[in-house]
Amino acid sequence: MTLYQDLALRLGEHIKHGFYQIGDRLPSVRQLAQEYSVSISTVQEAYRQLEQERLVEARPKSGYFVSQPYQHDNLPTISRPPQRPLEVSQWEEVLNMLMIRSEKLGIQLQHAMPNMQAPTLKPLLKTLADLSKQHPQLGLGYGDVRGTIELREQICRLTVASGCQLHPDDLVITSGCQEALSVCLRAVAEPGDIIAIESPGFYGAMQAIKAAGLKVMEIPTHPETGISLEALELALDQWPIKAILATPTCNNPMGYTMPEEQKKRLFKLAQSYDITIIEDDIYGDISYQFPRPKTIKSFDSDGRVLMCSSFSKTIAPGMRVGWMAPGRYRDKVTHIKYVSSSMCPTLPQLAIAKFIRLGGYDKHIRQMRQHYEQQRDHMLTAINTYLPKGTRVSFPSGSFVLWVELNLPIDCLELVKTCREHGISLAPGPIFSSTGKYRNCLRINYSQLKPHERENGIRSLARLIDEFTSTKKTKSQLT
Amino acid sequence: MTLYQDLALRLGEHIKHGFYQIGDRLPSVRQLAQEYSVSISTVQEAYRQLEQERLVEARPKSGYFVSQPYQHDNLPTISRPPQRPLEVSQWEEVLNMLMIRSEKLGIQLQHAMPNMQAPTLKPLLKTLADLSKQHPQLGLGYGDVRGTIELREQICRLTVASGCQLHPDDLVITSGCQEALSVCLRAVAEPGDIIAIESPGFYGAMQAIKAAGLKVMEIPTHPETGISLEALELALDQWPIKAILATPTCNNPMGYTMPEEQKKRLFKLAQSYDITIIEDDIYGDISYQFPRPKTIKSFDSDGRVLMCSSFSKTIAPGMRVGWMAPGRYRDKVTHIKYVSSSMCPTLPQLAIAKFIRLGGYDKHIRQMRQHYEQQRDHMLTAINTYLPKGTRVSFPSGSFVLWVELNLPIDCLELVKTCREHGISLAPGPIFSSTGKYRNCLRINYSQLKPHERENGIRSLARLIDEFTSTKKTKSQLT
Ligand SMILES: Cc1ncc(COP(=O)(O)O)c(C=O)c1O
Ligand SMILES: Cc1ncc(COP(=O)(O)O)c(C=O)c1O
Repeated sequence: MTLYQDLALRLGEHIKHGFYQIGDRLPSVRQLAQEYSVSISTVQEAYRQLEQERLVEARPKSGYFVSQPYQHDNLPTISRPPQRPLEVSQWEEVLNMLMIRSEKLGIQLQHAMPNMQAPTLKPLLKTLADLSKQHPQLGLGYGDVRGTIELREQICRLTVASGCQLHPDDLVITSGCQEALSVCLRAVAEPGDIIAIESPGFYGAMQAIKAAGLKVMEIPTHPETGISLEALELALDQWPIKAILATPTCNNPMGYTMPEEQKKRLFKLAQSYDITIIEDDIYGDISYQFPRPKTIKSFDSDGRVLMCSSFSKTIAPGMRVGWMAPGRYRDKVTHIKYVSSSMCPTLPQLAIAKFIRLGGYDKHIRQMRQHYEQQRDHMLTAINTYLPKGTRVSFPSGSFVLWVELNLPIDCLELVKTCREHGISLAPGPIFSSTGKYRNCLRINYSQLKPHERENGIRSLARLIDEFTSTKKTKSQLT
Repeated sequence: MTLYQDLALRLGEHIKHGFYQIGDRLPSVRQLAQEYSVSISTVQEAYRQLEQERLVEARPKSGYFVSQPYQHDNLPTISRPPQRPLEVSQWEEVLNMLMIRSEKLGIQLQHAMPNMQAPTLKPLLKTLADLSKQHPQLGLGYGDVRGTIELREQICRLTVASGCQLHPDDLVITSGCQEALSVCLRAVAEPGDIIAIESPGFYGAMQAIKAAGLKVMEIPTHPETGISLEALELALDQWPIKAILATPTCNNPMGYTMPEEQKKRLFKLAQSYDITIIEDDIYGDISYQFPRPKTIKSFDSDGRVLMCSSFSKTIAPGMRVGWMAPGRYRDKVTHIKYVSSSMCPTLPQLAIAKFIRLGGYDKHIRQMRQHYEQQRDHMLTAINTYLPKGTRVSFPSGSFVLWVELNLPIDCLELVKTCREHGISLAPGPIFSSTGKYRNCLRINYSQLKPHERENGIRSLARLIDEFTSTKKTKSQLT
């Protein structure tokens, strides 16, 4: 970290912690240079960065002031999906994305992969290597189909932070959150049934709905408060919806966290229509709020909430360790989990259990939360700086992905292909819809790149969008 | 290995390789003692062991002779399952078996687990530990949903031995054979469809059929030649069967290998009724025949065979590495695999690929085949010696499980519970049926125990059967 970045970080924290209030005048450049024994230009550089992060604004002739917090005036619009149950399409597009070999990703803004270079992961990797070396036999036999007791105990501890009181017997370990979602869907619904989901929504969940022979009912979703309960209630009145599948905390792709009151109302709604909720909490632990937001599961008084999660976003997806807390569906879920892949590998479970037990996990996610929050601010700055006027962008409350809505007549499936040819990979909006909507949208990851790579990436993206729209214009002028 | 075991092994091999023919007189005890420079009693001990293995017989006053090969006169009867499609029951019993913690297994004759103490596995475990230590990052990211190319290439090489010519693109890696079976079933059939299976058959496949909302049609099965093609044809005429799921090579639980001609006829039958075959080849590589038997997949001229397998029986189930060669269902299978657990962990795949590439796998299974064949003979001897008269037992052509049919009015679900209380775990017959048939049957594993433990186990089993039948008699006399 350079001197100016360090200074910007400190000042930024003073501001975030209220040491300087909104509208306060900040120390002059000269004062700060003296106080921190750095050069004038270092302070100027630091202020410039804080300006970019929208924490500070310069007022001509009077100096620097703490600015109003981020103005959510360019959030994506509330979605308006088709108002009837539909079959999920878009598999080809998802597959295209999955098949790209990671060496070929270039500037990786595509996959929702966490930062896996973090030094705070080292103790976990060491435990795993030690176990492999010293107790390889532990990895060989069949184990408990519900997963190791060691890990289930630690997950019970973790979920206290989200307001849950679970017993190890309430949990089943899975091959990632994907298996958890798939198993829970099959446990609560029969082919032909309708599942209500947020729109836009996670493509893996939608494809699982498709594969289980279910239909999807996309519900209008607000970029700050999540699934519209009014629209959901209308849909519940009109269609025999079997379950709601939602990611209400640090949503993928929109980044919102549904306010606690809304979560309670959603649970009540499920109760009054007697349907189940599949709650995907995969990003919950990397919310930027502290303490982390409560889950809907924490209000589950009658076992109708099946919570699904994994360590794919908090640790690493390659571990393939997830879990579900299936409430009253436990027995059915255990059966389906057994038939779908029998038990999960033991060593990763034991290594993660130890990582949590010894405090490594808490430390890791504390750092990651901070890191991602900073990266979000940088990414927002880059987007606001470089992408075309009128672009709307989500304001993630956690996780490490954001949602961009271009105010241009652009087909993002085409745009993403072009970007790929130029060494930038992005997730196209339509895969987050059952019907291929959101053609003018992109999901962008901000977990992994260094600031200058990220800035370059977004700048190149801007250039490609520009070329794209102008060739299009040329083409349509020609034809 | 003691001196006499060593000697018995050598003599046994001379006999198996035809150096001595059936009926030949073998060298006298004195001759052998001189030739091998061992004591008279060592030779006597060796001959006693060969007698137990039924390779040799002593004729009073004339010495030892090569005996007739094992007489298949006490094989299980051909099965007679219900003659209509049914829903699968028996999940409770399977779950009971799965939930027992391995520390509590006592004498483990229950799980179909391979011998995982084999020194020939060491190179694999070392590679895995090295990878974990030196390249932990490889285990962290999302990989190709079809599995690593390295492993798919090696599996193509391996399957040449079973008559296949596959390309890496024809394969998808799975979390064990269980996931492969589950995915393939969902790819070829819709809820309500009927799947024909062998009877008795693998419980995991039956439970996957249940979970997918399918019905099962159990087909009479011969203990030496497998599923009855005549009965199958009748069933195909009578019911709209969608697919056949079979384990034709080293069947679990019966141990037979369907003759090649029968396999070809089965494929033709599938062609003429235009249905698919899901072929479970999980034990194929540990057939005692060399070269190993061909798969039905090897005759698959039009892509209607979906082959499923894993390294769970050849290496270790805890690795959770399996695969499928889904023929013309590849795209659908890839979709269902993706939704059911996304991709599989990378490091075990890379370690196994290297193990195969460097010849470690071939060496390992060569040894395991020999080892299991010997253990089979010991186990058969123990069973024939100790279990009640009239007991029928299968003659496995590979794998490490056998099927015992007691000629007694005994409920093996009860028997298995009693055995468990006495520190012996066994798999009860009814879990291999959709309706709870085979109540007088047990499946017994012979992969893991030392000869004396195994003998003790079978002796205790015999005693418990005896007590069980007499208390039953007493009880029924009392009531
Ligand atoms: C909301 C959400 N749920 C589930 C998953 C799948 O997680 P896993 O890799 O643990 O299967 C993802 C991964 O992208 C996700 O974003
Ligand atoms: C015939 C058969 N198929 C499939 C399986 C499941 O194998 P895996 O552990 O690789 O999922 C087994 C395991 O017992 C089996 O015996």
